[in-house]
Amino acid sequence: QAGDIEAGKIKSAQCVVCHGQNGISTMIEAPNLAGQSEIYLQEQLLHYRSGKRSHQVMSIIAKPLSDKDINDLSAWYSAFKIEVTMPK
Amino acid sequence: QAGDIEAGKIKSAQCVVCHGQNGISTMIEAPNLAGQSEIYLQEQLLHYRSGKRSHQVMSIIAKPLSDKDINDLSAWYSAFKIEVTMPK
Repeated sequence: QAGDIEAGKIKSAQCVVCHGQNGISTMIEAPNLAGQSEIYLQEQLLHYRSGKRSHQVMSIIAKPLSDKDINDLSAWYSAFKIEVTMPK
Repeated sequence: QAGDIEAGKIKSAQCVVCHGQNGISTMIEAPNLAGQSEIYLQEQLLHYRSGKRSHQVMSIIAKPLSDKDINDLSAWYSAFKIEVTMPK
């Protein structure tokens, strides 16, 4: 079920510190989220919430998220457009 | 230990079918790898190889990878440059 991009933007305030203002990570262990596939993002947040995937920060962050939160955050970050330049 | 981008390019032939020629995924459940953080990519491949993280395809793909393979693949995909345009 597709999320609400505007709601996701608001909810992403807690993500910015590691994943960056523009979805490009500010910490080397944190992944970029900008333009990532919506389904993939939903699945990772569901896995962090259920425990199928674990990380000392993300497991805590994901615990209180509702399904709607997860869909909204995934809709927000997947709405970023990214252009790729491959190495020469 | 930083990997070898050229060696990573050759080794990435097996990744392209899901993660795309330019590192932008061609399958909605597969993540983009283009411009992803090198340390993050290394950690995910190590986790898929060790079983800390599991996926029906990636667990099989990662099993035979050496540490050098993991470093080379991570160096290759993190060498992609990405430009982000945020949603209005």
